[in-house]
Amino acid sequence: MNELGLILAISLLGLAFAGYLIKWVLARDTGTPAMREVSDAIKSGAEAFLRRQNRTIGTIAAGVACLIFIGYAFVRQHAEHDPTNTALELAGWTTLSFVFGAACSVAAGYVGMWVSIRANVRAAAGARTSVNEALRIALRGGAVSGLFVVAMSLLGVAGLFAIVYAVKGGLSGNAQATTEMASKIPLMIVGYGFGASLVALFAQVGGGIYTKAADVGADLVGKVEAGIPEDDPRNPAVIADLVGDNVGDCAGRGADLFESTAAENIGAMILAAALYKDNATSLGPNILGVMLFPLIARAFGIIASIVGVMVVKTDGKEDPMHALNRGYYATAILAAAGFGGASYWLLGKDYWQYFFACGLVGIATSLAFVFITQYYTEYRFQPVKDIANASVAGPATNIIQGVAVGLECVWMPSLVMGAAIIGSYELGKASGLADAGLFGTAVATMGMLGPAGYVLAMDTFGPITDNAGGIVEMTVGQDQPEVREKTDKLDSVGNTTKALTKGYAVGSAALAAFLLFSAYMKEVTEYSKATGYKLESVDISKPAVFVGGLLGAMLVFWFSALCIKAVGKAAQKVIEEVRRQFRELPRENQMIKFPEGYKPDYGTCVDIVTKDALRQMVAPGLLAVCVPIGAGLLLRLFKTAEDPLIGTEGVAALLMVGTIGGILMALFLNNAGGAWDNAKKYIESGALGGKYLTAGDGTKTKNPTHGAAVVGDTVGDPFKDTAGPSLHVLIKMLSTITLVLAPLFL
Amino acid sequence: MNELGLILAISLLGLAFAGYLIKWVLARDTGTPAMREVSDAIKSGAEAFLRRQNRTIGTIAAGVACLIFIGYAFVRQHAEHDPTNTALELAGWTTLSFVFGAACSVAAGYVGMWVSIRANVRAAAGARTSVNEALRIALRGGAVSGLFVVAMSLLGVAGLFAIVYAVKGGLSGNAQATTEMASKIPLMIVGYGFGASLVALFAQVGGGIYTKAADVGADLVGKVEAGIPEDDPRNPAVIADLVGDNVGDCAGRGADLFESTAAENIGAMILAAALYKDNATSLGPNILGVMLFPLIARAFGIIASIVGVMVVKTDGKEDPMHALNRGYYATAILAAAGFGGASYWLLGKDYWQYFFACGLVGIATSLAFVFITQYYTEYRFQPVKDIANASVAGPATNIIQGVAVGLECVWMPSLVMGAAIIGSYELGKASGLADAGLFGTAVATMGMLGPAGYVLAMDTFGPITDNAGGIVEMTVGQDQPEVREKTDKLDSVGNTTKALTKGYAVGSAALAAFLLFSAYMKEVTEYSKATGYKLESVDISKPAVFVGGLLGAMLVFWFSALCIKAVGKAAQKVIEEVRRQFRELPRENQMIKFPEGYKPDYGTCVDIVTKDALRQMVAPGLLAVCVPIGAGLLLRLFKTAEDPLIGTEGVAALLMVGTIGGILMALFLNNAGGAWDNAKKYIESGALGGKYLTAGDGTKTKNPTHGAAVVGDTVGDPFKDTAGPSLHVLIKMLSTITLVLAPLFL
Repeated sequence: MNELGLILAISLLGLAFAGYLIKWVLARDTGTPAMREVSDAIKSGAEAFLRRQNRTIGTIAAGVACLIFIGYAFVRQHAEHDPTNTALELAGWTTLSFVFGAACSVAAGYVGMWVSIRANVRAAAGARTSVNEALRIALRGGAVSGLFVVAMSLLGVAGLFAIVYAVKGGLSGNAQATTEMASKIPLMIVGYGFGASLVALFAQVGGGIYTKAADVGADLVGKVEAGIPEDDPRNPAVIADLVGDNVGDCAGRGADLFESTAAENIGAMILAAALYKDNATSLGPNILGVMLFPLIARAFGIIASIVGVMVVKTDGKEDPMHALNRGYYATAILAAAGFGGASYWLLGKDYWQYFFACGLVGIATSLAFVFITQYYTEYRFQPVKDIANASVAGPATNIIQGVAVGLECVWMPSLVMGAAIIGSYELGKASGLADAGLFGTAVATMGMLGPAGYVLAMDTFGPITDNAGGIVEMTVGQDQPEVREKTDKLDSVGNTTKALTKGYAVGSAALAAFLLFSAYMKEVTEYSKATGYKLESVDISKPAVFVGGLLGAMLVFWFSALCIKAVGKAAQKVIEEVRRQFRELPRENQMIKFPEGYKPDYGTCVDIVTKDALRQMVAPGLLAVCVPIGAGLLLRLFKTAEDPLIGTEGVAALLMVGTIGGILMALFLNNAGGAWDNAKKYIESGALGGKYLTAGDGTKTKNPTHGAAVVGDTVGDPFKDTAGPSLHVLIKMLSTITLVLAPLFL
Repeated sequence: MNELGLILAISLLGLAFAGYLIKWVLARDTGTPAMREVSDAIKSGAEAFLRRQNRTIGTIAAGVACLIFIGYAFVRQHAEHDPTNTALELAGWTTLSFVFGAACSVAAGYVGMWVSIRANVRAAAGARTSVNEALRIALRGGAVSGLFVVAMSLLGVAGLFAIVYAVKGGLSGNAQATTEMASKIPLMIVGYGFGASLVALFAQVGGGIYTKAADVGADLVGKVEAGIPEDDPRNPAVIADLVGDNVGDCAGRGADLFESTAAENIGAMILAAALYKDNATSLGPNILGVMLFPLIARAFGIIASIVGVMVVKTDGKEDPMHALNRGYYATAILAAAGFGGASYWLLGKDYWQYFFACGLVGIATSLAFVFITQYYTEYRFQPVKDIANASVAGPATNIIQGVAVGLECVWMPSLVMGAAIIGSYELGKASGLADAGLFGTAVATMGMLGPAGYVLAMDTFGPITDNAGGIVEMTVGQDQPEVREKTDKLDSVGNTTKALTKGYAVGSAALAAFLLFSAYMKEVTEYSKATGYKLESVDISKPAVFVGGLLGAMLVFWFSALCIKAVGKAAQKVIEEVRRQFRELPRENQMIKFPEGYKPDYGTCVDIVTKDALRQMVAPGLLAVCVPIGAGLLLRLFKTAEDPLIGTEGVAALLMVGTIGGILMALFLNNAGGAWDNAKKYIESGALGGKYLTAGDGTKTKNPTHGAAVVGDTVGDPFKDTAGPSLHVLIKMLSTITLVLAPLFL
């Protein structure tokens, strides 16, 4: 029980520290009245959207909760090896943890956004003083989100575990009974992960549609047609665009990482319980130590992240990215050390080194993913330059080249992933414990997720600085270009961190997937013990299993299509609205001549995207929920006496092939989008003629090469910020939904 | 032996009939001297490319042949259950059949193109008389290719089988020994399929790059920048474009279907042998009957195709598509009847009806794929209209919508495929024969491929009419618009048939894949009998097997990237060349004013694409060969005593997940490309303002909506005509390469 107490204490510490950071951020200067006005507009838009989005998600989640309860309590028969004594009890715990997970996920998203829409104006105001001040406000604002998410998810899982443990008599002291009972708790609280990921899915899809519909709409008419800069206050869609950064990048990503850590904590506990039962004599009398190892490792990661956030400062001369990197390295090193300590303490001195090594494999994998992402998306390197060069021949060749880069970029991550999975599996096996290979891959995932709090802080740093830049541009930017210069510097760092954390997110999804479907198979085996069959293999050469795999890949394509299409549709409406507002303005030389003090109607654009994003998020979200359920219930029909688990086996294939397809598709979408974005920035930095061409007589005309690059950038927007990140969540949601519903597919 | 004689006789009949059609086509009028001049330019360009391409392919194939021989003869140890007595003998047969397959595949591609570059000018000349004349010339020209391919592939497999059978003493009459020996022959001639698919892969990739680099280059500068129509003689890239239709669509597709039928014939024979051995008492004394059933079914399909081709004629009033459809229905009905007869004759009266039903499932699947393709790519339906509407907001939204349509379109084919696989498996099982489920899925594939000859004729009809249209446009088109109208009509039918046959090709690849990897598993089991292990499952939950699957999906993305990138690169060079030639011409109103009688230099463009296509086809081709080999040799290292087949199991996962990924990716690329193409055509037909906008004062300006649609069309070119069709070949090549090399991964 000491372990549980420590976990709860550290997660409360994490929350308390997040509270301290909130106070620190709120105490900063909120700048000029004009800044506050812009910030208030963003705030009210973001809060209105999140309120309505949460209402929609709440309704859907309530429906799913009812279905889970009915399915467990009344449709499914109680079976001998169930983790509870009655069907009703199992239904109760599962539904309760689902609702709790969903509620925590909503809260995590909300808190992240709550702080970021307050940190943005303070970072903008801080930029008037120094880069350091703005940097620290943005990072600490982001860290609220990061710490809150990781600590909440830990507290939720550990708290649920503690409650069930106490209720089921874990404090009575009978060692044999405790082991048996404790090993079953994760099966009763898997609902937590599913609740969290269901919310995360809708939050990410809805927010992703919102942010990119506004962005595409604002850019296509503002930048391309009207020729006004990014974040120009004359653009009617600019507030919607800034709101989008918050609801898409903060709230969505917060919910995403919340569910990642929650799902992986539970999955790792299932595998740890299985490992313990296979090796009870070697691992000593304490099952709790082994089962709570993943949570302890995560708890140490929280402390490491706190230290990392606090060490970041800069002197205004160096590249701010270096300061953030210092913080990251501090966090990673501390997290690794804590990981080693936790292994030694809980896994014993004979085995800890193998699992510590697995953790290091995980950390190395995340670094590799980050470097690969940089190579494919930064304009220092060839791929982005190739796209920029292809833009000379027009938008078509720009798109062709970008698609090619995106499709190509999957090869290195695939090899890294393959090496990490096999490597950590072999290390686990080398420990000499029985069946420890799979646990080795799980431990690699834990190692990778150690610095998650800091990484999420860096990620949320992005939208905060993006917003700060927008606020400065809309207010003091014209008169005080030196302030804009500072926010531009931070904004560009924010773009980098957003891209890198996306690489990190795919990498963790990749490793975590293997953890989660191993957990799924252990769970099925646990439930089907009475039949005498074990789900020991997922034999894709059986037709029904192959079809399961096919459906998994199909889901990835279809889901991506719905996300991308939703952005296209909503963006078209924004474009029409902006064009409507611009139609009446006078023109000169094909360029709009804005009247002095022109102020567009921001509200209509905010309204359009709010409504459209909410409407369009339903289809992809429901698809992601219905395909695995439908497949499970359908493939179950091909059950035979020799093959009683075919339904769950088919679903396992759906999960695995869906995961492979989802990871590669996400890499394609994220990196193609990032590369297009930076190809445009490369040209804007002056390459290939820059943004405008100056003719002999001094007249400036738009450079068609830049125009072509803008087309690519726009196409990439829904790729990299809607479909791509939503796929990360989809992959993990597939794992949690199947974990929860596995008993129904038997 | 009667069966073998019949097969050989019918395939010779098919070849003789192809010869008759050649004579018939060559006897037609070759038109005006101007027509012949254009046709000669196409002919010399196409022949030069094919000659150089075959030289490159020949070199690569020779290298691979050496490696196969060395691997089998010296690296691998002879094992007890090998199909031959010595390692050297096995090496000899495998290498011989590889070389023979490669040579036949080259010949198939060459003959197809040889006729089509002669039929094009005759169809153009025929269009001066009547639509019927041109239609029949084009279809019969295409039928040469279709019949030649199917008959040659059948003759090759049956001939090789007969030779090995005779050499190994099959004529001696000892029933027991004959059964044992005959069942091993397919394992000795699998090289034939691999040789054929290696050539097909390079031919399709190289031809696909050629055709689209020329097309994209010609369109972007000609249509978009210079504003001249398609196939205008003033466009320096027009001849290269017309050559591309022949080398990409005729030669590439010919080699593709050649290898499909060859590989599937051999795969089906392996499964038939396994079925016979499991059911020797039920199926009677004659193993040859069962093993040759797939070939007999194919032979009846040839007769059906001949009849189908001969019944096509039209009166010039009806839509020529109806005439082609009549021929297709005739072929399909006859092939189905022949299939039923073959089942009754060879599988016996107790079982035939189940397998006949499987065949019908295959035919229904191909019809479903064709209808789905139509829905997603014709502008009568919503998806294409959506893309056209999205073009109003510019090229970016056009691309976003097109990508969304392409990604979405996979869902129906996936469900159809899933239903077909499970359906035919259950039908096979229902026959009551042991282990007959997999044979059921194989029979479905055979049913689907029955009308292959006719389908290929319809497919090759496309490039012939496309060329005929180009020749008319470049010669008599200006003076005799009614001739151009006729070829336009046929050209548009050709576009439809090309799109539909692409749907057919993916569908057949999908079903065939299941057949081929079942064959692979039977083969591995056969080879590893001595170990006592059977490759009965492909357990993707083992790390090494999962990684195999991951590598399969990775290969699909990477390969597509290389194909698309190659087109982009080569097209940029064409664009530069065309711009160079246009730079000196006078301009008016931003449009080029061509001098009277302007004749560009066609040769430079032909040269550029020839060189570039040959250079760029090497990387994707080698990638496709090296990934499965590398994976097999690498995963083999994780062999343990309990898991001696892990190398072959990992490769099986590579094959399966690669196939799933490849099919979905091909559907995405083909249908997105087709939909973009037709969205542009929809606008050109007058929708959304048409091609030009007429201002109040009568001046015509380019319609930006059409411009946006042209960008989409251009992006779609390498998708639908390079990467997509190359993926079909890749999928099948993966199966054949693993079939040949399986013994080396043990």
